[in-house]
Amino acid sequence: MLNPVLVEVVRGHLVESRHRGSVSVVAADGGVVFSLGDMETPVYPRSAIKGLQALPLVETGIAERLGLTDEEIALACASHSGEPAHAAVAAAMLAKAGRDVSCLECGIHWPMGEGANRALAASGANPSALHNNCSGKHAGFICLACGTGSDPAGYVRADHAVQQRVRSTLEDLTGACHDEEHSGIDGCSIPTYAIPLPAMAFGFARFGTGIGLPPDTAKAAARIRRAVAAHPFMVAGTDRFDTKVMEILGERAFIKVGAEGVYCAALPELGFGIALKVDDGGTRAAEGIMGALLLRYLTLDDTARAAVEALARPVLKNWNGIEVGALRATGELEASGI
Amino acid sequence: MLNPVLVEVVRGHLVESRHRGSVSVVAADGGVVFSLGDMETPVYPRSAIKGLQALPLVETGIAERLGLTDEEIALACASHSGEPAHAAVAAAMLAKAGRDVSCLECGIHWPMGEGANRALAASGANPSALHNNCSGKHAGFICLACGTGSDPAGYVRADHAVQQRVRSTLEDLTGACHDEEHSGIDGCSIPTYAIPLPAMAFGFARFGTGIGLPPDTAKAAARIRRAVAAHPFMVAGTDRFDTKVMEILGERAFIKVGAEGVYCAALPELGFGIALKVDDGGTRAAEGIMGALLLRYLTLDDTARAAVEALARPVLKNWNGIEVGALRATGELEASGI
Repeated sequence: MLNPVLVEVVRGHLVESRHRGSVSVVAADGGVVFSLGDMETPVYPRSAIKGLQALPLVETGIAERLGLTDEEIALACASHSGEPAHAAVAAAMLAKAGRDVSCLECGIHWPMGEGANRALAASGANPSALHNNCSGKHAGFICLACGTGSDPAGYVRADHAVQQRVRSTLEDLTGACHDEEHSGIDGCSIPTYAIPLPAMAFGFARFGTGIGLPPDTAKAAARIRRAVAAHPFMVAGTDRFDTKVMEILGERAFIKVGAEGVYCAALPELGFGIALKVDDGGTRAAEGIMGALLLRYLTLDDTARAAVEALARPVLKNWNGIEVGALRATGELEASGI
Repeated sequence: MLNPVLVEVVRGHLVESRHRGSVSVVAADGGVVFSLGDMETPVYPRSAIKGLQALPLVETGIAERLGLTDEEIALACASHSGEPAHAAVAAAMLAKAGRDVSCLECGIHWPMGEGANRALAASGANPSALHNNCSGKHAGFICLACGTGSDPAGYVRADHAVQQRVRSTLEDLTGACHDEEHSGIDGCSIPTYAIPLPAMAFGFARFGTGIGLPPDTAKAAARIRRAVAAHPFMVAGTDRFDTKVMEILGERAFIKVGAEGVYCAALPELGFGIALKVDDGGTRAAEGIMGALLLRYLTLDDTARAAVEALARPVLKNWNGIEVGALRATGELEASGI
């Protein structure tokens, strides 16, 4: 089916570019709150479900046993910018598992954050796997492997105990089968399983409320949400949308971006889970849609509303700081009320 | 109207993302060769028409009078990566006009090229306007102003003699009215005028052949095409699509990317001009479409075909170098024959 245009990018008096996409909002009891576009085609969640992928680490009691801090648990859910604090926290997690950077199987890339990228270059150093935006998630996987007594080597493979445990958690939360046929390999080499957006949204509604989950899982979800709300810098970084939104909203919204225009969120006070996908994979559009949904569903005071609006509907400026256009969600998303 | 899906991004067994867009191919006599999607809505050409914007500099004889080299003329058509050679050639152009970097009104940004970005950071220096990807075009504007005896100050403004001359050239080439109502401000602060894709393609068919142009303009177009074919590094840079394609094809294809998913090309041997726009602004899709069109229209030997195919249909690898997917144009573009 044809997904609607959800974001327009304006320059001068004209719409210059358009992004189509689909949105699912589901309640913790499985009731559909809102649907726009294709609700059936499986979508790779990519990094948008890192919060859910961190559940086994916490619900097994391993995070507690290893003494992982809230910052470390937040980093386990991160697509971070590779800033020095991110790399240091990933290294600390590995040390608590008795391991080091050599165990990371996520691959190496220069820091995603522009400032961190240049600062590392200026220092004369090269990046390590600690700078990979997924290093916290991978350090968490290594903690999980070591904590359950299994060898972490090969922990990225679909047949490793770590990925089997994570996959089983995802199936339990979302209620969707995670099968080989709908799997791909993610940027950091772990499997990613495509499922329909409503299943993803349902998983986040349960993650945000604990409703319908075993007690240890519900408790683990609450710990992860608190940890991220306390350390939003850890899940993304300087000037990043996830970090800035959660700095404003705290525990009221757990949001997480994924590659290729995927975004997921839990709104615990409403019991809603959100999952969205931009057809073309554009992150700017995914942010605009998520921003519009936060404005639509959350009751915010003027300060918080203005701050979220500035992120959701950015003014576009050129290299001389001249305002040249804007990004804005279309009317279908901005409709008020639930 | 609804534009067709022209590029699919595949991961595992599934299509993960889709890009819609429109394509116009027009002959130098104005005959329509091929159309896909919306041919009426005006599109901002952005940087895709830098080759046409450089015409006044050459057709006036100013490039000759100032002794501009082929490298310098190629840089006047560039969205370069801010590598040391690009910055040096921009500085040399300014010197020939008796000016320096302080006259550039394009704004400052860190080099677009990742390697150049980090090398500059590692050197401890900050970027200047010479590193702006448009610095060559702007240096050309300053040469044009100085060569015609006008003050270059304010040369980015729509009412400056330089922009009026450029606008008039664009109207002559494309046959389309460039009006205020359809104008916006580009990233480098000059005006950009939205016109329908067939007019853009027509302009490039004439740019590629000289057919229907005044002799001085036709001669200038040939000089610009030769300069870019001789120095494809200057128009983009290391690992860039424009550079790599023109290194393979030489004078057989003049291609130029623009922001927000615009691409233009001239294929002189066929007399065709090409203009395309990706709805969502995605550059990866614009490259895939341009690659497919080059493969469709040009008769290439096996080596050249394989080289263009590798650029047009890239295999996507993750941070560990594992093949995770591919980008491919859809059947509508790949159809053979003219």
